[in-house]
Amino acid sequence: MTVRYRPELNAISPYQPGKPIADVQRELGLERVIKLASNENPLGFSPRVREAVLQALEQANFYPDGNATLLKEKIAEKYGVAPEMVLPTCGSDEMVDLIAKTFIEPGSQVIMAEVTFPRYQITSLMMGADLQIVPMKDLGYDLGGFKEVLTPQTRLVWLCNPNNPTGSFFTRGELLDLLESVSPETLVVYDEAYYEFATHPEYPRDSIELVQKYPNMLVLRTLSKAYGLAGLRLGFTIGHPALLGLINRIRNPFNVTSLTQAAALAALDDEEFLARTVANNNAGKEYLYGQLERLGLPYGKTEANHIMFDSRRDGQAVFQALLRRGVIIRPVGVPRYSTWLRVSIGTAEENRVFIQALEEVLAELAPLS
Amino acid sequence: MTVRYRPELNAISPYQPGKPIADVQRELGLERVIKLASNENPLGFSPRVREAVLQALEQANFYPDGNATLLKEKIAEKYGVAPEMVLPTCGSDEMVDLIAKTFIEPGSQVIMAEVTFPRYQITSLMMGADLQIVPMKDLGYDLGGFKEVLTPQTRLVWLCNPNNPTGSFFTRGELLDLLESVSPETLVVYDEAYYEFATHPEYPRDSIELVQKYPNMLVLRTLSKAYGLAGLRLGFTIGHPALLGLINRIRNPFNVTSLTQAAALAALDDEEFLARTVANNNAGKEYLYGQLERLGLPYGKTEANHIMFDSRRDGQAVFQALLRRGVIIRPVGVPRYSTWLRVSIGTAEENRVFIQALEEVLAELAPLS
Repeated sequence: MTVRYRPELNAISPYQPGKPIADVQRELGLERVIKLASNENPLGFSPRVREAVLQALEQANFYPDGNATLLKEKIAEKYGVAPEMVLPTCGSDEMVDLIAKTFIEPGSQVIMAEVTFPRYQITSLMMGADLQIVPMKDLGYDLGGFKEVLTPQTRLVWLCNPNNPTGSFFTRGELLDLLESVSPETLVVYDEAYYEFATHPEYPRDSIELVQKYPNMLVLRTLSKAYGLAGLRLGFTIGHPALLGLINRIRNPFNVTSLTQAAALAALDDEEFLARTVANNNAGKEYLYGQLERLGLPYGKTEANHIMFDSRRDGQAVFQALLRRGVIIRPVGVPRYSTWLRVSIGTAEENRVFIQALEEVLAELAPLS
Repeated sequence: MTVRYRPELNAISPYQPGKPIADVQRELGLERVIKLASNENPLGFSPRVREAVLQALEQANFYPDGNATLLKEKIAEKYGVAPEMVLPTCGSDEMVDLIAKTFIEPGSQVIMAEVTFPRYQITSLMMGADLQIVPMKDLGYDLGGFKEVLTPQTRLVWLCNPNNPTGSFFTRGELLDLLESVSPETLVVYDEAYYEFATHPEYPRDSIELVQKYPNMLVLRTLSKAYGLAGLRLGFTIGHPALLGLINRIRNPFNVTSLTQAAALAALDDEEFLARTVANNNAGKEYLYGQLERLGLPYGKTEANHIMFDSRRDGQAVFQALLRRGVIIRPVGVPRYSTWLRVSIGTAEENRVFIQALEEVLAELAPLS
């Protein structure tokens, strides 16, 4: 194969597909497999979604509404912004890709954290960014470190709050300080995929209002986590219409399926399901904190629906040993955190099964000295 | 808004969203609106899809299989290739975007036709291509014209066969001649969105086999047209694993929803639905040919599910006058074809309603002299 391609791709590792649960079951001969690997909602999703999807299916031979008119109106109303400030995408993944394609040129200075959502890095490299990676500080974002590498030429800053996979957060004060420190020509991408799970009083709950004051900020939300619709792929972004207008120039016009638009409309209305989700998460968080302490494993306090902990063993080995017991979690996979793994908070029963399996694995594998 | 963005975007027009049918109905006070604007399947889609979607919905809180393992296997089996030669995407739209991001650099020479699928142009410009546009010849691709601008440095050639919106096709002999003329370093993107509708004996039916001989060729197919699943967004590409591997480096890992994967698996099995679709299309084609001849309007013979015709009036005016009568079609919107429109072939009843409305519009609007 001699076809020429963009040299930027040489910096990007080939895609490694995960295995479907069914394959894991078959290969390991397991009846029951628990997946606490992708921060999915263990309670499912709003029961209102089913009827909405069925109704939309009747018209599935037609293209989706490329403008997602009704969905934009719903989101705008719910969050108190104009519909022109809303842009739905095929998961936040697609928005991260669109942002990179819209704003990053070869050599653009782009800043991101050492341990965060990996798509920031891949899409930035794809567009040839000069990427500055700021090390974590006590498992959290070091926004002071971000400020040290900021210049008036910085093109883009990727922020995730609460952060995946650490579960850490930064405060409203820290966010405002950073927003005041960046040039108005620098784009601040503020990814709140785990917003609904945050309970800390200093967590910035008014990010969407901040967009009115900081037109160089985009707020990313998703229905994949608290709303439980990961399989349907819906993210949405709130930001200045001029920024969204630029992004719209290169958006695939039919990026969100008609079933997904309908499902999202139904799910966004169900506050009761959201409240149950958050309550389950809070209970699971306390249980897992207690158990990790009992097992003597360091962990990070979380404002999200996942906990990062230090197994004191090789993370890959722990991952594989848990897999053999039918529990899928995820090694962090960053050199400096090679003994750390991330577990999603499940149902009470799933959390118990995980802890039991983990305890067996800890007994099986000797700690690294 | 002072955020800096890529200058390539200045060459791309802001996105103009189409209106949902419901809006057209409300604004014009129309009870019945017929949409023959987007080459959708007027018969719907396979009845097998509903059950498959309902079953997949049960697991919609989990991320889709990012590798689309089962779907790749199904497509591979159906078309006689290895699963590593298959890559599903969120419509062919997403693949066109991925191809541009993988292969086109600033200044890369890219060749496309004057009147064809507009996403080739937008994504090529997005990546800074030096775009060479080859004028149409008798409403069809002028592959001789393509050969004249080809150089050993040509990075990519976009081909659509049958072509949208002209409905024209080029023969197997012409395709082979072009494949032999390009450098093995040049990527040939061969988009067969309308493959299933082609009936001409010289149309190349063996394109997927050609991929084995020409590893610099990608074949694009879709379930949006003959399979009637436009609302669910599924395209798939068949090509050399090395090319797909490059594209995979930058693909959003969860680009196809789990409901869409399930729907596609069910739809691809239903040969009976496909046969009904093609039969309806063939009957509609003959009816519309006869009526356009009766009305004295030039048109292009089609191998697809749409017909391009010359209204001899301003295309926008004809479009608007038809809209007021509850019939949505599409003006071609290319300067040299300002009096031409594209109509999708509907059911027998839809075709009759369209012709009746068109006849009224022709009486209302005087021909351009």
